[in-house]
Parts: sequence; C-alpha cells; structure tokens
Amino acid sequence: MKHIAILGFGVVGGGCAELIKNNQKELSALIGEEVTVKRILDLRDFPDSPFADRITHDFNDILNDKEISVVAEVMGGSHPAYEFTVALLKAKKSVVTSNKEVVANYGDEFLALARENGVSYRFEASVGGGIPIIEPIISCVRQNKISEVRGILNGTTNYILTEMFDYGKSFEKALEGAQKNGYCEKNPDADILGLDACRKIVILYALVTGKLISPDSVYTEGITRIRTQDVRAAENAGLSIKLVGRCINTEKCAYVMVAPFMLGNFTPLSFVKGVYNAVEVIGDPIGNVMFYGRGAGADATSSAVVADVIHSICGSGIKPPLFTKENCASDISVLKFKNYIATDGNTEKIISLIGNQTFLNSSECAFITEELSEEDAEKIISKLSESGINVLSRIRVL
Amino acid sequence: MKHIAILGFGVVGGGCAELIKNNQKELSALIGEEVTVKRILDLRDFPDSPFADRITHDFNDILNDKEISVVAEVMGGSHPAYEFTVALLKAKKSVVTSNKEVVANYGDEFLALARENGVSYRFEASVGGGIPIIEPIISCVRQNKISEVRGILNGTTNYILTEMFDYGKSFEKALEGAQKNGYCEKNPDADILGLDACRKIVILYALVTGKLISPDSVYTEGITRIRTQDVRAAENAGLSIKLVGRCINTEKCAYVMVAPFMLGNFTPLSFVKGVYNAVEVIGDPIGNVMFYGRGAGADATSSAVVADVIHSICGSGIKPPLFTKENCASDISVLKFKNYIATDGNTEKIISLIGNQTFLNSSECAFITEELSEEDAEKIISKLSESGINVLSRIRVL
Repeated sequence: MKHIAILGFGVVGGGCAELIKNNQKELSALIGEEVTVKRILDLRDFPDSPFADRITHDFNDILNDKEISVVAEVMGGSHPAYEFTVALLKAKKSVVTSNKEVVANYGDEFLALARENGVSYRFEASVGGGIPIIEPIISCVRQNKISEVRGILNGTTNYILTEMFDYGKSFEKALEGAQKNGYCEKNPDADILGLDACRKIVILYALVTGKLISPDSVYTEGITRIRTQDVRAAENAGLSIKLVGRCINTEKCAYVMVAPFMLGNFTPLSFVKGVYNAVEVIGDPIGNVMFYGRGAGADATSSAVVADVIHSICGSGIKPPLFTKENCASDISVLKFKNYIATDGNTEKIISLIGNQTFLNSSECAFITEELSEEDAEKIISKLSESGINVLSRIRVL
Repeated sequence: MKHIAILGFGVVGGGCAELIKNNQKELSALIGEEVTVKRILDLRDFPDSPFADRITHDFNDILNDKEISVVAEVMGGSHPAYEFTVALLKAKKSVVTSNKEVVANYGDEFLALARENGVSYRFEASVGGGIPIIEPIISCVRQNKISEVRGILNGTTNYILTEMFDYGKSFEKALEGAQKNGYCEKNPDADILGLDACRKIVILYALVTGKLISPDSVYTEGITRIRTQDVRAAENAGLSIKLVGRCINTEKCAYVMVAPFMLGNFTPLSFVKGVYNAVEVIGDPIGNVMFYGRGAGADATSSAVVADVIHSICGSGIKPPLFTKENCASDISVLKFKNYIATDGNTEKIISLIGNQTFLNSSECAFITEELSEEDAEKIISKLSESGINVLSRIRVL
C-alpha cells in the first residue's frame, strides 16, 4: 500500500482524492499495489465529505508521517506552498503540483532540492491542465533540436476569442459569458492580461532551455485590445486570432513572449477552440507535434496530478533538466514578425508613406506588413501617426 | 559511452544514425554520456555513407557484442525481424522498433521475453511516426478509465481524403497524387484498404486492454468506395470524412475497427489534414486529449525510435502492460452508429419505407439515420434495395 497526502482540499484536491478512490483498479495495475490518500491538509473541516477522516489542519501530520512518500501540493499561491514544498523535499518526500505560480517562481530550488534528496519534484498539471505535456517534453522529444515551443495556454482567453470569432461577440460580452460560465475569476486580470499564460510559457521555456526566468521580465500582452473589427478582418483573410505563449529557441539565444497572434487557418493551433489548450513543439528531426486537450477544470487537472504521483512512485530514469535562475528574458525587439495593422487612413496615403502592403478586406484600412523587427514596426506606426493616420490596432502574425 | 546497433539501413535506419550523430549534445544531456551507433546490419554495402565502417552483414556481430545494450529494429516485415528480436531479447539486449507488423503479430511474445530477461521492448515509432503516443498512453493517462482511443493512423489515406475534400479531386486522381509525391507504395493496397491503420489500432487496443488480437479478425474497411458525391454531401452538412481506427472500451467488452467515418467539424480529429496523423484518447476524468504530428517519414520516425533508445538506456518504472494473445476481435455488430446513406431514390418514397430521416443537401437523395446497430442498418439498406432504391454509399457517422 502506497500512502500519499494532498495539500489543499479545493476542487483539484477533491478531484485527486476522487480519482484515486474511483480508479483504484487502474492505479494498482500501474503501480503494482494499492494507493491511498492518507492525509489531506486544509484549514477547513469537511464533515460531509467521504474523506472527512483524512482531513488535518496540521502540516506536521504529513511532514512527520514516514508512511507518506508522495505529496500533491494543489493549494495554489506562492506561500505557504513554497515553505511546505521545501520542507517536504528535505524530508525526502516527492512533491507533485498543479501550482504554476510556485513552479514559475521557485522551480529551480525545488528541482535541485529534489535531486539532492533523491526524490522527485513534478509539475505536469501546472501547464495545460490534464494534457500530458511536461512529461512528453521531458522524456519523448528532447533528443531533437527544439526550435520552438508555443501554445494556447489559457482557456479563458481562448474561450473569449472563440466567442468573438464564432458568434461576433464584443470582447466585453464574451468576457461576461466566460464569467457566467465559471471559466474565470471575478477579477479576470490574470487571464485577460496574459499573466497566467506567461507563467506557463516560463515553465515550458525552462524545460527547453534550462533557464528559469522571472515572469515579470517576459514581454506579455493580453487580449483586452482585440476589437470586433480585428476579428472580422482576420476572418476575411483566412486567419484567426489566438493568445499564444512562445518560446523561440535559436542557436544563439532563446526568446519568450506572450501576445495575441493572427494565425493561418492551416496552423494546428488555429484549430483549438473554446476552453481547450494545446502546446506545439517544433524540432529537428521530429517536425511539429501538438498536444491538445482540456486545459483546466478539476477533473482533467487531477488526471495530470495523479500521473505525477504515479511517476514519483514508479520512478523514471529520464530526469527533468535542472533550472538555473535568470532574472531577465532576452530582448524580443530583435525578433521579426509580419504585422496586421488597422488604421483610419486610406490605401493611397499609406502606400505613399510606407510603400505597398498586403491590404485586407476590412471595414477599416488594414494591411499586413512584410516581416519587420519590433523596432521597424514601431517606426512605421510612428510614421503613420505623424502623418495624421491613427493606428487602431496592431497584431503580430505567426 | 553507450553503444547501440541498428537493424536495417533504409530511410528510417539512416534517419536514426543521422539523428544520433547530429544531436549528440542533446542526447548526452539526457543520458549523461555519449551514445554511438556501433553496428548497422544490412545486406547491402554503403561505401559512400559516413556510416560505411559500421555496416555488417552478419547479425551475430551484433548479437554477440557485449558492448551493445540496445538495438533498433527498423527493417520492417515479420521475418527475420521476429527471429532477430527474440534472439536479442534472450541475449538481454533491449529492442526498440518502428515495425508495426511485427508488433501487431508478436508484441505479446516480445514484451514477455523482455520482462523475463530484465530488458525492455519498446515500439513508439510503430504508431503515428514521430508523435509521442505510445509512451504517453503507457505512462501519462492509464490512471483514467479509458473509454475510447481513436485515431487517424495512416497519412496516405488522410492525404487522399484531404485532396478530395479541399480540391474536389476524385479518389483515383488523389491516389495518383499521393503516389507522385511518394506518400505511398506502388501497390497502395495496405494503405487504402485500411490494413496499415488496422495494425496500428491493434497495437493501441493492446495497450488499453492488454489483449493483442489478430489484425485479420478486425473489421477493416478502406476508403476505396468514397465518392466525390459523398465528400460534397459531407461538406454541405459541415462534416468531413476520415479513415478512423477506433478502440471502444466498455465495462463489459472492448471493440476495435477501422472504417471511414463522417466527423463533425468541431471534432478534433476533423482538423487533421494531409499526411498528418493524430490519436485521441477519451478517459475519465481526463476528458479528451489528442496527440498530433507527422505520422510518417524517416525524419519524424527516427525521433520516436531514438526516444525509445533513450527510455531503454535510462529505464522507466512504469512498464507497458503485458499482452495476452486473443485470436478474435469482439463482434462489432452490436455497436450503434448514425449512418450517412446516399441513394438513387426520392425523399417521399424513403420516408414511406423507413420513416423520416435527416436529409442532406446533396446531388443525390442522401440522409443521416438515427443511431442504429449494424444489423438494423443492414436491414434498412435491404429494405430500400428490395423496393428498387439503390444504396450508393453508406458511411458511419462519429
């Protein structure tokens, strides 16, 4: 019998306890013995829960229990998740987590501590909910020269953009719908400003480069400025708009960013609709592969947490890379993108100012530029506005 | 230094040797030491190859070499691949393969032999080319109650169907294009009759159920009867047509089949175009997840073969299930499907014979039935033809 503990009896914690109870047959077949949740840490009591007898308010009940070998930290937030994780790893217990915040901020320390203490620290559920992404990146694709990992990493924003696209809703109406359906918090900023996606791409970036950079230093643009006109112009051009986290890995340098991108309708990420998430890995010689599924929700996420519990119990010879902390992301201004630019000008004047462009079928005067560095794109925008043409929107093209 | 050997210096064997040579830095980071291809077995000589000095014509050079711990069997076909694999496993060498034929026919023996001898037998590249599918199913989703695994498992047929859909080509013209582009053999039967997809779904079925059934006993229908009219009718109804391998896993019984299906445009498999492959896993509580990428080609496939080499060297605590041989697949005639049926009849007569149906916008009199068992679908078809209405096409709906 393997004993595990859960920190936090919220929806994910509850989902994990349920999975382990309901799918005991499947788990035993995998592990070779039964698995049981011995302790659940929460501040609250749950007298009506079938797990009421496992609830404890004292972290030491878990820390000092020699029978407990793996702990699932699903409490969220940086503190006390950080302190608990450090204590558990030092006590030679493996820790698995769904907590992207604590991984993005302290993953380097945890991985090093785990290795020192001969246990594991795993975080499959921190990116892409239930979708197997972290483990396949760690153990199935790293023999490739990986040039990019990019993904739709936030279900709320993808739901909003899908509603704007498929049903012509405004950003505000679509956001309201997301809130009504319980797809985002009352304060939706972490989602719509791109901060949630940013933490997740920071984790993927660390897996690919071995460098854990501060999420604050990552270029992060949300979806609040996407307008109905942009959506229609994209649609007319056979494009869609998605919030994409990108880790671009060149021989010299790796770049990371989160921003809305216009994508061609042949791009696999463009197929990802509603609250679904997907991560695309591009490597040599593998080409592009994509992992797709439900990026949030207690059910799907608990599958990923329990997958990590199983890996921790069974062990794996392929270890995640250790992370080195880096304070600052590389400057993305050297990267080149095509740009969608919508203006209140007219075709002739724009051509006379900045040369011919690919003009779109839009209610506004909108066009797509050639590939430009961020600096050159800014120059064009300045030149237009100095000549009295307002730039109403700019979206990079993938 | 880890030494490996390759059996077969065709395109996949060549791709593996190249990958190991070119991506040594990535491999060393994963394994902790260098990896080298010590021997390559082939009947031919390759005097101009950079690997000319590793070529041997004698299998015993590999079998008896104590330094070689992992062998990649990428020769294809059942024999002598079967005999070589048995000998290598008995000699306590791990074997990895891209050879779906030998896995589908003898996987049970190989897995048992590998376990007896304390080595591993792995076959990531046998399904979906480079896409990580087998390892994620083995180690990331088996804690779920898996109700279905289904996939687009053959790039050639998916290319043909995509050409018919997107460019209005006939089956014959699209097949010609696939042959011109090198996407299929001169004799395309194994692809277009569904036999290749059948072997792959047999492997996925074995992973989910632990039962390796004879591919010959699997209901297998190819794409040769798909007509331009069917494609247009599907398109008008917001559906697409894909050749899908399905493993349907109920509490009582598991079913396996390969057939063309009409899919709704919201279904993730419907997004998979051209030579790409994808496998969708549906489980509780994970929901549906999909793995997508290039399903063939030496480059992508070599990534999967080398992933298995790495897993064999590093070891994994999560083992694939052992397979038990079963001669016969479950009878699928109890399964229920909606059916697209195209006829030369007229609406009134069809309604009078078999009741109201969902009629489609088509050049023919075509409709979609309610969910029917295979038996009931056959009855309807008989009833129509007895009344002088010819059924021109029947395609199940997913």
